[in-house]
Amino acid sequence: MSSSLSSSTAATVSSKEVSRQRFVNVFEGIVEELTSILRSYKMPQEAIDWFQKNLNYNTPGGKLNRGLSVVDTYAILNNTTADKLSDEEYKKVAILGWAIELLQAYFLVADDMMDQSKTRRGQPCWYLVEGVGNIAINDAFMLEGAIYEILRRHFRQDSYYVDLLDIFHQVTFQTELGQLLDLVTADEEHVDLSRFSLDKHSFIVIFKTAYYSFYLPVALAMFMSGISDTRDLEQVKNILIPLGEYFQIQDDFLDCFGTPEQIGKIGTDIKDNKCSWVVNQALLHASSEQREILDKNYGQKDDEKEAICKKLFKEMGIEKIYTDYEENIVNKLKQEIDKVDESRGLKKEVLTAFLNKVYKRSK
Amino acid sequence: MSSSLSSSTAATVSSKEVSRQRFVNVFEGIVEELTSILRSYKMPQEAIDWFQKNLNYNTPGGKLNRGLSVVDTYAILNNTTADKLSDEEYKKVAILGWAIELLQAYFLVADDMMDQSKTRRGQPCWYLVEGVGNIAINDAFMLEGAIYEILRRHFRQDSYYVDLLDIFHQVTFQTELGQLLDLVTADEEHVDLSRFSLDKHSFIVIFKTAYYSFYLPVALAMFMSGISDTRDLEQVKNILIPLGEYFQIQDDFLDCFGTPEQIGKIGTDIKDNKCSWVVNQALLHASSEQREILDKNYGQKDDEKEAICKKLFKEMGIEKIYTDYEENIVNKLKQEIDKVDESRGLKKEVLTAFLNKVYKRSK
Repeated sequence: MSSSLSSSTAATVSSKEVSRQRFVNVFEGIVEELTSILRSYKMPQEAIDWFQKNLNYNTPGGKLNRGLSVVDTYAILNNTTADKLSDEEYKKVAILGWAIELLQAYFLVADDMMDQSKTRRGQPCWYLVEGVGNIAINDAFMLEGAIYEILRRHFRQDSYYVDLLDIFHQVTFQTELGQLLDLVTADEEHVDLSRFSLDKHSFIVIFKTAYYSFYLPVALAMFMSGISDTRDLEQVKNILIPLGEYFQIQDDFLDCFGTPEQIGKIGTDIKDNKCSWVVNQALLHASSEQREILDKNYGQKDDEKEAICKKLFKEMGIEKIYTDYEENIVNKLKQEIDKVDESRGLKKEVLTAFLNKVYKRSK
Repeated sequence: MSSSLSSSTAATVSSKEVSRQRFVNVFEGIVEELTSILRSYKMPQEAIDWFQKNLNYNTPGGKLNRGLSVVDTYAILNNTTADKLSDEEYKKVAILGWAIELLQAYFLVADDMMDQSKTRRGQPCWYLVEGVGNIAINDAFMLEGAIYEILRRHFRQDSYYVDLLDIFHQVTFQTELGQLLDLVTADEEHVDLSRFSLDKHSFIVIFKTAYYSFYLPVALAMFMSGISDTRDLEQVKNILIPLGEYFQIQDDFLDCFGTPEQIGKIGTDIKDNKCSWVVNQALLHASSEQREILDKNYGQKDDEKEAICKKLFKEMGIEKIYTDYEENIVNKLKQEIDKVDESRGLKKEVLTAFLNKVYKRSK
């Protein structure tokens, strides 16, 4: 039994690895193409080398969920699977996937500077790499700039080109708005829990994460599939935005209550004074004594104080509040997906696939 | 005589002031419009206040030459003057002007962080303002994001909308390439003159300045005027890019040889180890003794060493090299302007107006 299980797991891992590798291969072509633009401008070699290093250090290396989901969504919408797409069609949709990964790289290089983070994806943050420093700001700009260079080269002739540009701009601006509210709310130097609220938490996670991680991949695949009636974009947005919010609430919950094995890192939200769903729920339900404990112990780089907060959260039954929330939102999302109008070519399966990925994470 | 002169000067100043004020009024409307987007998202007030402060602190306040030249170019192309444009038409073309000013604000907020500058336009750099710090990175992103929010709102229905987006993207990327080469060439901590060259200088100034300051304003006015045949865009590019390079060479020259009254500041290129036209000319013509003096004294925060460099530049006759260059480039540009094909609606006067503004600066 155990050996048959592990061999089936190995087969799954390997097919996942094959599709990941096909996706990564497209990125190598993108780097080559961007390099050729710089060469055509007669850019000196040292700056070309720098740009290549910037691209390769910051863009691949993550889980690539966002990029891969563009390809998977496109396949579902076109009644096929990713592995059956011709090389030409695969490359084109994968470029849209990499455009999201470049967008994310742009955000992460900058976020790490603003948060003074030390590592990202198991390596030093880009701005901490020898010789980089504040040049990372311009490098972030160039990661964003790369998006529009490749979109222009591959989609300029398509009827939906302007829609691609509009949605990238809109989602980029929304993400920046989420980041702004996050930055002005969670000031590590001045802990003040009265600045937190569930409304702000909701705004931050929807704008900073849900638009670009959940709505954008599906919308891009829809544009390329010619399924882009405003009503269909609204249908998916109305499901993917709350789903993205749920994903982030789950993330906040696991940061506090998950084991390091489960989440692959040690949670630091309490010490970092994060405006997390957990502390916001605690603030909502706290007695004045409990509130005092939170004021004294939240947001400080101190193991004991962190432990006091965790103990309080447990006593307050935040785990029960979370599981109730999860059951409720998952049922609601399933019902909403069930009501989706598929008459113009949209598929419920696109949304179910996203929901299952998130729901399974906590199981 | 003197009184009549000063009254005529006052009249000129006042008409210039009136047209500047009309342009600035449009910006107030832009801020109001961007604010209403945030309100429609139900963004908390503290973040709205922050965004408004970011916009108002960083966007107006400069000379506004780039923005105003979009309006002036548009007027020339449409056989009129800016003051005769209806409020509606004026506002629309002024929005394109402000889009360039927002682009510049985005670059400057970031450049000041990367250069560790202290002041800009007579006030502390944005990142040095109390409470801002590294949040300035996201603020820079939002200044760029604002460009596409206002373009979408005012130009989405126009046939040339996609051309506006493409040129903004392309010019933004070019400017970032110029900034990248500048950053990797002029490292304040490691002075190494062998990294400089006139070719690199030319690349940096063309990409970092000429595209967005000279080509972009004219191209935007051309798109809105319906004069956007590729041949016409090429004609203006072939004149405005060398003109922008001349402008920057003049700037470098004046930084070293201009009086503080002339340039409105004290030049610091020598101390800042800048890859300036002046030092590149000196490197080109230096004997091995002169080169040794440069290696020992250039790029250091030391008044005496700066004076030694200046003395050497004078001895080497850099001023004569500059005036020869200026005479040559101005004549060449005049000849090129003279050859411009006006048959599709382009006007030589657009280019002459730009040339005169730059040429007069040094007279």
